[in-house]
Amino acid sequence: MTGQGEYARAVAWVGGLEGHVAMIDQTQLPGEYVVMRIEDVETIFEAIRRLAVRGAPAIGVAAGMGVVLGVRDWSGEERGGFVGRVGEVCDYLGTSRPTAVNLFWALDRMKRVAMRMTDATVERMKERLLEEAVAIHREDEAMCRAIGEVGAEVIPDGGGVLTHCNAGALATGGMGTALAVMFRAHELGKRFRVYADETRPLLQGARLTTWELMRAGIETTLICDNTAAQVMREGRIDVVITGADRIAANGDAANKIGTYGVAVLAEVHGVPFYVAAPSSTFDLSLTDGGKIPIEERSADEVRRGFGVLTSPENVQCYCPAFDVTPARLIRGIITERGMIEPVSQETVSARLGSATVVN
Amino acid sequence: MTGQGEYARAVAWVGGLEGHVAMIDQTQLPGEYVVMRIEDVETIFEAIRRLAVRGAPAIGVAAGMGVVLGVRDWSGEERGGFVGRVGEVCDYLGTSRPTAVNLFWALDRMKRVAMRMTDATVERMKERLLEEAVAIHREDEAMCRAIGEVGAEVIPDGGGVLTHCNAGALATGGMGTALAVMFRAHELGKRFRVYADETRPLLQGARLTTWELMRAGIETTLICDNTAAQVMREGRIDVVITGADRIAANGDAANKIGTYGVAVLAEVHGVPFYVAAPSSTFDLSLTDGGKIPIEERSADEVRRGFGVLTSPENVQCYCPAFDVTPARLIRGIITERGMIEPVSQETVSARLGSATVVN
Repeated sequence: MTGQGEYARAVAWVGGLEGHVAMIDQTQLPGEYVVMRIEDVETIFEAIRRLAVRGAPAIGVAAGMGVVLGVRDWSGEERGGFVGRVGEVCDYLGTSRPTAVNLFWALDRMKRVAMRMTDATVERMKERLLEEAVAIHREDEAMCRAIGEVGAEVIPDGGGVLTHCNAGALATGGMGTALAVMFRAHELGKRFRVYADETRPLLQGARLTTWELMRAGIETTLICDNTAAQVMREGRIDVVITGADRIAANGDAANKIGTYGVAVLAEVHGVPFYVAAPSSTFDLSLTDGGKIPIEERSADEVRRGFGVLTSPENVQCYCPAFDVTPARLIRGIITERGMIEPVSQETVSARLGSATVVN
Repeated sequence: MTGQGEYARAVAWVGGLEGHVAMIDQTQLPGEYVVMRIEDVETIFEAIRRLAVRGAPAIGVAAGMGVVLGVRDWSGEERGGFVGRVGEVCDYLGTSRPTAVNLFWALDRMKRVAMRMTDATVERMKERLLEEAVAIHREDEAMCRAIGEVGAEVIPDGGGVLTHCNAGALATGGMGTALAVMFRAHELGKRFRVYADETRPLLQGARLTTWELMRAGIETTLICDNTAAQVMREGRIDVVITGADRIAANGDAANKIGTYGVAVLAEVHGVPFYVAAPSSTFDLSLTDGGKIPIEERSADEVRRGFGVLTSPENVQCYCPAFDVTPARLIRGIITERGMIEPVSQETVSARLGSATVVN
């Protein structure tokens, strides 16, 4: 499923309708490389909730496949009942991660497929849903590659790049978003060093981003989140590139907690800050980032993030999963449809087009 | 040695010249409250090096006591030889933490005491060195209380305070520096909430600051370092107060890695940033912060900071122990001699006086 020289496959469908989902358990990386064999929707739900699969695009791919797992054993032959079952499964999966817009985008797409097949058998509808889930995956692969192509120019040869969290192959169905830009620049022969924020509390940067970059042969330095300001001040960073979990119509971008702080520090140090994200990450129904719901995570992710208690047991914690970086701090948004730069409601709309409103 | 309602004693001398140093092993807090009984200078050296005792003032106190442990068994009766031994022990202890100016300040003070006693017996000199080490401790207690008095006014009733690392009782011979301000404001009946950065890699904020604040009955919220920007943006923070490990003549202040980033974020969010530190933390021989040597710590503090490997084993890390916050980002420096505000070479010099150059 993976090997040196090619990017990791976070999630894939194996076989036909009676097949299964193969998913890397990212909570165990980099210590253990475990590929889970998943055959039921409850395990997909749980995998999304506990971050075994994470990253907006990968969650969308997993959710599409989860719908197939949740409906393939439906034994009725009546179309209306089956469409109802699809709706139930989508509603259920929609509660696994409230902030990830790709989750809802993928689930809506699966629902629409079922609703549009007005004269097919239930068996055919099941097959068609699997085709759609696999199509979401294939499109995601193509999208990642396109983001890499569009973004590679922002990395200067001989430069330094800072990234926060993991927007890599592990976060998508393809080669990633922010990391796709780095992988593509590396393919083009550029030399550069990536500084990866470890990204507390769950350390996606330390565990996943460094693993992906080193596997690809890119020079990598791991830093604590609080060291980002210092490496910028020392002149080590020429560009910051992160992913996004949800982007509002004006370009305000929600991403892993800490991204906003990095964007402020980048501006103060004169370092351009880019977001790399597919058009499916935009939620044009939200006028600005203030409307993006922010999930709060369990205090124990801070207090015992590594299985070890590192604070008083009963200390209160504040642990938002995301923050919102305002558009004014973002130099450009790298999408599969091209670069959005400068970032504003007008440029977002011009690049995505009113006809391309997702959902 | 400690109890509910009074501050923790990081380090203390117990008994007479044949006594010992009692030191809290801060690497084991808050899980275990272990008071070490130390009877030799090598264990003091090791305790400073491995951060069992940390915080500039507490290191100074421990170093002074370490000198006593290192010379009390000297069996000669010749004064010159004894003074030489004192110098050797001071040189040895000076290599334990290169950035902590209080370390050198305390060692120089011990050396001077020995050198000035030109007509005393070796036995009397040993006793006098113990008196000096204890005096350093007592003065530190008084200094902490004075800092608390001077600084308490910067905390607004009903407000929010952010701090980074641990500048508490555990970091000093008394009630702390940054935390002394909070303890004193609390004594005065002010209500406020302290947001404590966990402070990677060694988590002094999570392990020590929260423990000290909660013990004193102050409302405490633990956050990951990367959440500081978000809590400021949400309007939760009215003032930032940190300690310092070394301050140059112009007010540039070296403190735990991450402090500089917090200061930048505070400025951008319009939050005043204060440093609380005794006059012994100033190194007036350095014109500015660019001259402060920055110690780099082991990569394994990042890679396995919790006893668990949380990144690829061979990933390169950049792990400076400190960064330097430029004076222009510091609203005021709270010292035992009064507030330095605004912060500049002139105001530092006016408050400390040219006659008070330490060293």
